[in-house]
Amino acid sequence: MRSAAERSSAGPPSLLYLPELRASATRFTLAGDEAHYAARVVRVRDGDRVRATDGAGRIATLRVERVRPALELAIEHAEDVPRPARACILCGAPEGERGDWLVEKLAELGVTELVPVDTERARWPGRARDARWERLAVAALRQSRSAWRLELCAPVQLAEALRGARTGIRWLADPAGAAADRSAIAQGEPVSAAVGPAPGFTDRERNALLECGFVPVRLAAQRLRTETAAVAVAALWAAARSAAGPGPGAPA
Amino acid sequence: MRSAAERSSAGPPSLLYLPELRASATRFTLAGDEAHYAARVVRVRDGDRVRATDGAGRIATLRVERVRPALELAIEHAEDVPRPARACILCGAPEGERGDWLVEKLAELGVTELVPVDTERARWPGRARDARWERLAVAALRQSRSAWRLELCAPVQLAEALRGARTGIRWLADPAGAAADRSAIAQGEPVSAAVGPAPGFTDRERNALLECGFVPVRLAAQRLRTETAAVAVAALWAAARSAAGPGPGAPA
Repeated sequence: MRSAAERSSAGPPSLLYLPELRASATRFTLAGDEAHYAARVVRVRDGDRVRATDGAGRIATLRVERVRPALELAIEHAEDVPRPARACILCGAPEGERGDWLVEKLAELGVTELVPVDTERARWPGRARDARWERLAVAALRQSRSAWRLELCAPVQLAEALRGARTGIRWLADPAGAAADRSAIAQGEPVSAAVGPAPGFTDRERNALLECGFVPVRLAAQRLRTETAAVAVAALWAAARSAAGPGPGAPA
Repeated sequence: MRSAAERSSAGPPSLLYLPELRASATRFTLAGDEAHYAARVVRVRDGDRVRATDGAGRIATLRVERVRPALELAIEHAEDVPRPARACILCGAPEGERGDWLVEKLAELGVTELVPVDTERARWPGRARDARWERLAVAALRQSRSAWRLELCAPVQLAEALRGARTGIRWLADPAGAAADRSAIAQGEPVSAAVGPAPGFTDRERNALLECGFVPVRLAAQRLRTETAAVAVAALWAAARSAAGPGPGAPA
């Protein structure tokens, strides 16, 4: 009999998202959205083994005791994956609905924290951080089979965001900046990047970032949209960190 | 009086897309979509100066002779930007509507050619390469203010795509690959990358790629979706090439 993972090898990934995994009993009944996902999308069967994570470092192998009348699971093995080095993006508001795929792609590429930043020229819409973003981050977690989920912060003013970004490597995405030096990132240094909103940072905001130790870094010869610059930063970080091997955050 | 470029500095970029630019008379009347874009989005006024490109290396400064009753333009200055080194992505079909933003982001990041590849496990929908993709590529051209537009090829079988990819640096996006070496790309070598469709390449397809000189390259510690891997490749190339200065393809 093929396992659920094999059945889904050309389909949806079979990682379950169980935020309560760490506190769960060894055997438990799963209900709600995740039970629906397991039964209808992964199509688990009695006796299957599936992987699950809480998105906060815990990852487990579970046995499907029975699917009906309710999904009963037993934890066979669990382990903790070390927290990956901080990879945080402070991001101004992009245009329109572009925040959705920003969230999805940053999550897939292993960014640890997205801080939506309200700026003088652009504010995030009130529904930022809504249930849709949570769903996108969970779907990306499944896709990447990671043990750590992107943390979605509430929108804050730039000054407040900067109070939380006073250590590690700090990039300011800037077409006039220098070429990106990724060597320290490859070695697991914590890293943050600030990306301007669609209409750009004001001079005052830019100066505040420079004073806070953010170094202008050029990502491309062309001008990039806000969400494109943020995803390009995440891609550079992902490649730099994976150059040193799978590393923390990614189960074997 | 502020120029159109200044008025739109916090709004839509004011680069016009005029495919017939090279053959245009010095003074000409603009009609259709682009005239509407100039009048309604850029909001040009009599006497304004605007930039325009044909997306094939020609870039010009135009003076707005009059806006009404029809948009009359005069070419004040035109120059040719050298063709950038080839940066080509052979891409299997992603899930659902994800091809749309694939096109937009590859265009923004300066990829020169997108070759949609039909594979054993996934085919591009018939409407690939439709008018929407053309619009997305043009919008990205405006956004990036580039003189060269992403070329959108018709979907082809992998074997045919490989016949066009026998020179230059060749990457195969592969979680089991080696770290990306971007030094030759920074020096302007032509480069291609193959990215598998959502269900992955088959072993036979993978072997065909390896035999054709494609080298497995790891982009991230995590598994990436098709469109994310393609955009991550484009971001690595864009950063590598911009490290050597703005370079060809980008007007000063």
